[in-house]
Amino acid sequence: ADEVITYAHGAGGDQMTDLVENLAVSRFADAEADVGLAALDDGSVQPIDDEHSVVVTTDSHVVSPLFFRGGDIGRLAVSGTVNDLAMMGATDPLALSSSLIIEAGTPKTTVEAVTESMQAACAEAGATITTGDTKVMGSDEIDTLAINTTGVAIVERGTHVPDAGLSVGDKLIVSGTVGDHGISLLSEREGFDFGGDLESDVQPVNDLVRAAMDAGDVTAMKDPTRGGLATVLNEMAEKADVGIDVDEQSIPVSGAVASAGEVLGIEPYDVASEGVAVMAVDSADADAVLAALREHPKGTDAAIVGDVVEDHTGQVVLDTGFGRRYLTPPEGEQLPRIC
Amino acid sequence: ADEVITYAHGAGGDQMTDLVENLAVSRFADAEADVGLAALDDGSVQPIDDEHSVVVTTDSHVVSPLFFRGGDIGRLAVSGTVNDLAMMGATDPLALSSSLIIEAGTPKTTVEAVTESMQAACAEAGATITTGDTKVMGSDEIDTLAINTTGVAIVERGTHVPDAGLSVGDKLIVSGTVGDHGISLLSEREGFDFGGDLESDVQPVNDLVRAAMDAGDVTAMKDPTRGGLATVLNEMAEKADVGIDVDEQSIPVSGAVASAGEVLGIEPYDVASEGVAVMAVDSADADAVLAALREHPKGTDAAIVGDVVEDHTGQVVLDTGFGRRYLTPPEGEQLPRIC
Ligand SMILES: Nc1ncnc2c1ncn2[C@@H]1O[C@H](COP(=O)(O)OP(=O)(O)OP(=O)(O)O)[C@@H](O)[C@H]1O
Ligand SMILES: Nc1ncnc2c1ncn2[C@@H]1O[C@H](COP(=O)(O)OP(=O)(O)OP(=O)(O)O)[C@@H](O)[C@H]1O
Ligand SMILES: [Mg+2]
Ligand SMILES: [Mg+2]
Ligand SMILES: [Mg+2]
Ligand SMILES: [Mg+2]
Ligand SMILES: [Mg+2]
Ligand SMILES: [Mg+2]
Repeated sequence: ADEVITYAHGAGGDQMTDLVENLAVSRFADAEADVGLAALDDGSVQPIDDEHSVVVTTDSHVVSPLFFRGGDIGRLAVSGTVNDLAMMGATDPLALSSSLIIEAGTPKTTVEAVTESMQAACAEAGATITTGDTKVMGSDEIDTLAINTTGVAIVERGTHVPDAGLSVGDKLIVSGTVGDHGISLLSEREGFDFGGDLESDVQPVNDLVRAAMDAGDVTAMKDPTRGGLATVLNEMAEKADVGIDVDEQSIPVSGAVASAGEVLGIEPYDVASEGVAVMAVDSADADAVLAALREHPKGTDAAIVGDVVEDHTGQVVLDTGFGRRYLTPPEGEQLPRIC
Repeated sequence: ADEVITYAHGAGGDQMTDLVENLAVSRFADAEADVGLAALDDGSVQPIDDEHSVVVTTDSHVVSPLFFRGGDIGRLAVSGTVNDLAMMGATDPLALSSSLIIEAGTPKTTVEAVTESMQAACAEAGATITTGDTKVMGSDEIDTLAINTTGVAIVERGTHVPDAGLSVGDKLIVSGTVGDHGISLLSEREGFDFGGDLESDVQPVNDLVRAAMDAGDVTAMKDPTRGGLATVLNEMAEKADVGIDVDEQSIPVSGAVASAGEVLGIEPYDVASEGVAVMAVDSADADAVLAALREHPKGTDAAIVGDVVEDHTGQVVLDTGFGRRYLTPPEGEQLPRIC
């Protein structure tokens, strides 16, 4: 009764899931959806008619600082929503909304720079902002800027990709190095300067996902944002009621991220990537999908990192090279908010 | 270069329009849309195929207090988005997203009460929340709670209703009393207690709009939210390049709102209604539409308030009973934020 909302409720882990289950799932379950709220997937999918479904996803972004190495809140807002659509198999965004809550006193040039960046990210993704909203609040009410982007896409009915679609035998592929956004932002916030290589990977990857889907059967997808790769793999294993084996050596991590992560004491697979997809792929197609990803400029570091197995249902086992242990999701309280 | 964002930029008037024109319209114009961003309508309309279009609209709500006479932020968020869809002629919402930014330390019961209210408003409107997001921020970053709701609906291609669709000869109809939300909230914030009759009108009106559209040719629609009836009528006149004549005596205003407005020194037509539609209707159908509205429980106070005329293009003339004057929109700085 006296419980209050804590940072963990917004950190993408178990406590957030519990909150959403309690608040929303019981109230808004939708029996007619292809993928309803109860699935807790990257977005929802609802049939319009026999041939088409509409995919919807939303995220609010409140990152600090607004401008960071490798990106800014505008690029993050557009990429995040384009990517959540892509994670549902909807690589062709039809419409994005953009809702700004701005602190009174913010220089117009700041808002302009962010909007320019949204425009560039939209151009990169082939997306269009079609509608928006602008609210202005006092400095005791909002810190500089919050952006909500909601994305809408139409897909052929039945072609969407749920995060729970993996099955035993599938290969797990990561489309690029992990942890870049999280480690880079946390370094910057802590005041460390590890040099120019360390920067956020924030980018729309719908084009990359399209290339993968054209090359083979992608059975499940999720972007490792809040909670990182560790959280996403655990969610996929749980939802599909399968086990996942991961080979630690094969997880792509950039040198800069690895060494900064060591200094900070943070595992790259525990923090957000903002330009990466985690895919389960039919094993017969895994090499073809991997090749297609690597040919794409945004997928040069793609790697097969593991297998879907019958054992240890709902859990992820990491082979470290020295032994095997469960890969558990980071606790919500551990990590500051970075998106 | 040194310009900063002020409250007027979020108040729904000329300065907001200028900001949006500068920031967004130039960057995100969409030639293929039925109603693109450049139209600055209540939402966007884009064709999916020859037969269907998708309507999208978004609003962030940051009202204080969260719970007010006649409603709360949850009911406001759902109603606002359902109503903006309805203003485009899309009275059957397919999907709503719900994105919460919550201040750490907020009691869970507060968030529960708001979500319960969203559920009730969804049930009333026949809407479903299919996807969402939850972010938690510090008390220096957000004040209690902000909610973004984005709405999606599918309409038969060509059946949407733009706000600029009025033409000379049409009648203007207001579906209920105006100013209730604004006058009630401002009274509450000022600490006045004018008694139980004064409360927000916040409600979804898609059912009411459907009744009107079934009864006759509704040529244009807009909901008089920020900036009130005065702003909306001026926008409609400007966009359609017509004049509007309004008979002040016929504008429906409740007794409680009229007297509180006098005490506060605020005109009811200058502040937000959150459960009302302003419609232009083909004059041949005006009586039938009015009758359909009045038969509906949410439309008992509906009234014909004016005419679309050839004169004074882009302007609204108010006949006060004592004379005629221009009805100009309120200045953005005049009014505190109430939605
Ligand atoms: N307030 C809420 N109301 C309804 N559903 C919610 C809410 N918050 C989250 N969800 C749902 O919970 C699931 C997980 O949300 P989450 O935000 O973690 O996904 P994501 O957007 O893919 O990740 P991220 O926000 O890190 O980019 C989604 O299905 C989302 O729709
Ligand atoms: N930040 C923004 N980016 C893009 N378009 C915007 C932005 N802010 C507002 N708009 C557009 O400007 C127009 C007017 O917005 P406004 O929010 O006043 O409409 P509304 O939602 O009908 O009113 P209210 O917010 O008072 O309910 C809309 O077409 C909206 O899409
Ligand atoms: Mg996601
Ligand atoms: Mg996301
Ligand atoms: Mg709005
Ligand atoms: Mg509107
Ligand atoms: Mg609105
Ligand atoms: Mg999210």
